[in-house]
Amino acid sequence: MPNQTDLSKYDNSWYSPKASGIKRLFWYFTNVVFFINPINPFSGLKVFLLKLFGAKVGKGVVIKPSVNIKYPWLLEIGDTSWIGEKVWIDNLVKVEIGSNVCLSQGAMLLTGNHDFKKITFDLITKPIKLENGVWIGAKAVVCPGVTCHEHAVLTVNSVATRDLDSYNIYSGSPATKIKERQIF
Amino acid sequence: MPNQTDLSKYDNSWYSPKASGIKRLFWYFTNVVFFINPINPFSGLKVFLLKLFGAKVGKGVVIKPSVNIKYPWLLEIGDTSWIGEKVWIDNLVKVEIGSNVCLSQGAMLLTGNHDFKKITFDLITKPIKLENGVWIGAKAVVCPGVTCHEHAVLTVNSVATRDLDSYNIYSGSPATKIKERQIF
Amino acid sequence: MPNQTDLSKYDNSWYSPKASGIKRLFWYFTNVVFFINPINPFSGLKVFLLKLFGAKVGKGVVIKPSVNIKYPWLLEIGDTSWIGEKVWIDNLVKVEIGSNVCLSQGAMLLTGNHDFKKITFDLITKPIKLENGVWIGAKAVVCPGVTCHEHAVLTVNSVATRDLDSYNIYSGSPATKIKERQIF
Repeated sequence: MPNQTDLSKYDNSWYSPKASGIKRLFWYFTNVVFFINPINPFSGLKVFLLKLFGAKVGKGVVIKPSVNIKYPWLLEIGDTSWIGEKVWIDNLVKVEIGSNVCLSQGAMLLTGNHDFKKITFDLITKPIKLENGVWIGAKAVVCPGVTCHEHAVLTVNSVATRDLDSYNIYSGSPATKIKERQIF
Repeated sequence: MPNQTDLSKYDNSWYSPKASGIKRLFWYFTNVVFFINPINPFSGLKVFLLKLFGAKVGKGVVIKPSVNIKYPWLLEIGDTSWIGEKVWIDNLVKVEIGSNVCLSQGAMLLTGNHDFKKITFDLITKPIKLENGVWIGAKAVVCPGVTCHEHAVLTVNSVATRDLDSYNIYSGSPATKIKERQIF
Repeated sequence: MPNQTDLSKYDNSWYSPKASGIKRLFWYFTNVVFFINPINPFSGLKVFLLKLFGAKVGKGVVIKPSVNIKYPWLLEIGDTSWIGEKVWIDNLVKVEIGSNVCLSQGAMLLTGNHDFKKITFDLITKPIKLENGVWIGAKAVVCPGVTCHEHAVLTVNSVATRDLDSYNIYSGSPATKIKERQIF
């Protein structure tokens, strides 16, 4: 009989969120009240709060309503990038977003995975990097460990499971290259 | 070296939301409190509010909880159509929904796009039309400019990037025709 | 001229939610305040409330924030299973979740469908069963009537339209078998 997963043996004690329990609790409620909750449509307060909790955020960054961010101290955003409505940055480890990046509405960045080959279903975390000029389309998902190289595009509702080459457009689930991106 | 997008040069000043800043602000909070917020499960108040802000809504329309609507004055819904739970109508421009249309839970109508071939990443808006009897499945997405002709069906989590022919069923991302829809 | 759907003739009066209107109303607001609303990050209160409303929930079950559950009295969860953030269990009929099951963030279980071949667009409900050790990936969708057999895996954003074989991994929309799952 094949082996079976046993989540009672799951052990993620090796994982460090790089912040105290108190800081994480304060961020949890800040995220709920000012980010997930769309009551505050203005971007400035959100950028201020992200920096207060340790994020590096460049100039002219726009944070739309209903954004969900796991840990701001593991987030870097360059200049004039846009974080669209309902974007979910689930950054258990570092997420680096370059300049002039657009994350469209409902996009998701996933950094956590599980080892489905183990009984203990071990947590696997891998960082994500979105280089300058990248565009992640509405409801698209970037999986753990993926680097989207400069000016790559991921279309609506697609899933990037591997690195995206620079100046190329990817579509599908898993996403495959469909054409080059030329900028005039 | 290839050209790079520069979102500091983004200029959408040509775009008109067809309403004053005050009206948009009032709608923003009405949407947050009575639509996105699921606290009000009843449809009648929502239909009343949509009409108050300029939507054309027919008889017997059902609006489920947690719906997100960008601009009601750019929305037309015929008779006895259903707007399901967590449907997101992101109508920067006109969205026309016919009669007996079903938008299932989590479906999304997208009217905004960007010109990824330009340094300035120009906003592109295109209207959406869902003709009578159309069914947009759960979590499916209709992209800008798409017309779903009479009684077309888009299956769960699929993405319509082009017009859908009447009485046909589409699936996948991008969606392709899989079979005819016959109604007895 | 082909037949047309007429939602004014929709009749789901045969359907029973297996609870009184009062109980459903109480659950509706409990779900809104303590489940959908992420203000309560702790799992224990949620397990207590689910049991209070008739769910069968085993030991060591974890319920993350922003979960949306239709009817707890139609829900069974085994031991040490995880219901991830923003999981949506739309159980108009019975959903059975075994032990050591992981529903990742944003996953959706759909039990309702419509007969698109009928003018009356009849409601069709079918139960879902997730056997022990199953993993439903982030934003993946399980369609009505599907059984995911032991230790099956559905990848990120995929859609299970048919039963998944035990110890196999499925991907895509609709999901197809991509490889075996071996557990060491």
